[in-house]
Amino acid sequence: MLDPARLSIHQVTLLQQCSTPQFVDALMRNGVPCTSVWREKVREYGVEQTARLLADNGVALSGYCWGGLVTSPDRSEAAKARDEVRRALDEAAAVKAPCLVFVAGGVAPRDKNIADARARALDGVAELIPHARSVGVKIALEPLHPMTCATRSVLSTVKLANAWCDSLSAEDIVGIAVDTYAVWWDPDIEAEIARAGKRICSFHVSDWLVDTQDLRFDRGMMGDGVIDLPALRRWVEAAGYDGYVEVEIFSQRNWWQRDPDEVIGVIKDRMQTAV
Amino acid sequence: MLDPARLSIHQVTLLQQCSTPQFVDALMRNGVPCTSVWREKVREYGVEQTARLLADNGVALSGYCWGGLVTSPDRSEAAKARDEVRRALDEAAAVKAPCLVFVAGGVAPRDKNIADARARALDGVAELIPHARSVGVKIALEPLHPMTCATRSVLSTVKLANAWCDSLSAEDIVGIAVDTYAVWWDPDIEAEIARAGKRICSFHVSDWLVDTQDLRFDRGMMGDGVIDLPALRRWVEAAGYDGYVEVEIFSQRNWWQRDPDEVIGVIKDRMQTAV
Repeated sequence: MLDPARLSIHQVTLLQQCSTPQFVDALMRNGVPCTSVWREKVREYGVEQTARLLADNGVALSGYCWGGLVTSPDRSEAAKARDEVRRALDEAAAVKAPCLVFVAGGVAPRDKNIADARARALDGVAELIPHARSVGVKIALEPLHPMTCATRSVLSTVKLANAWCDSLSAEDIVGIAVDTYAVWWDPDIEAEIARAGKRICSFHVSDWLVDTQDLRFDRGMMGDGVIDLPALRRWVEAAGYDGYVEVEIFSQRNWWQRDPDEVIGVIKDRMQTAV
Repeated sequence: MLDPARLSIHQVTLLQQCSTPQFVDALMRNGVPCTSVWREKVREYGVEQTARLLADNGVALSGYCWGGLVTSPDRSEAAKARDEVRRALDEAAAVKAPCLVFVAGGVAPRDKNIADARARALDGVAELIPHARSVGVKIALEPLHPMTCATRSVLSTVKLANAWCDSLSAEDIVGIAVDTYAVWWDPDIEAEIARAGKRICSFHVSDWLVDTQDLRFDRGMMGDGVIDLPALRRWVEAAGYDGYVEVEIFSQRNWWQRDPDEVIGVIKDRMQTAV
């Protein structure tokens, strides 16, 4: 049983059905207290407009998603990418999100050097810390599934996120986002969640479908796959996390095709039975 | 530069173009000294017939692919699966393959318990050891990519394979197959390959394409993706491996559609420039 006051539904879960106002309406209609907004949608509707809409409706924010992709070996490209993250941090502050979900970036096909890409990502985070502090938005390092390593994130495990946090020594402003979909397979996950402790500033749930057909947009509803979600929730809570449980389902073939109220209804049910 | 005498081309690389005799002909025509055969193809053509064909043509074997899927929580299903692995070990011995590539199996949707699935897989390997010894075929534990964890392999890292080997204490008959496609993203891979040392009994190469479109059948030709293959080869060789370098490319949209001689020609070229 999850306290309904801890439910957050990520905007991406209704990405294709709803404009930002329609999405906020759907949350209100269904008594969902919190969301994490999707940057593309925010920029489409307008940052100030989104901030006002959320505030007027009393919707809390569990995150701003996302900024990053700072691994380019080209110095000027990397500098541009960091500037873009600074803008994302500003926007996160404007909508009053506590953290920006940070997606490291992939491996450059020209150098094929994953160790260098990881080093550049870590340096990139270090350079972003002063700006994050100045606007009061945490950088939530989100390990993504290894299948996204080439293009989206060389940060592939919570173990590596912990190592980055150790090296950054910026516990006040750099945290870790644990996404069940990205980490459930990891033999070290229980230990690394315990090690992360209070670094965990964001917790995302969805499920891994046995017949997964796409590397990004085929996530399952909690309970429909093979992830032991209650165990993962127990571990992050034992580590000290007591914040929102954020539902983040990218689902081209199923949930993005359905009525918003139906999707939210199923989510609310599954939060009680499968998480 | 790879010594051409160390080239092995896995039968699956020409899975759709060639029957087993056509495949062996193609190897002969192109001076490829070694292969790893695909169990389904062997059974289709006949085990004895395949053994004779390979022997008559002087084709060496680097492996027999595959056996496993022993993680069922149902005792009788698991026992059946182990019997099937014993048959695969017999077949591997018949074709004179030095090892059977072992694919652990996935997570049962009914119990969603990955820790238990891993424990059952390890127990399953332990039970298979006497038979493997009796027929003189190594069990090559192959960690598969975490994206296959639900259905094919809860053995997701070389670190976990090392832990299993530590616990089995059967270095004479249980080894590790390192597949570049499965492990390239792993932050611990260099250290775990070093730790594996002489356990490494099989080394597979292919590449990870930036625009990967399928979880199983979209592997790239060496050089076409982002994997630093020379680094991985250097590490396995530093660990003591000096056996065949086995090319294993599942490629529905590209290489399975091409002429066998063209595919082998590209492979031979890339082995000199990209591995």
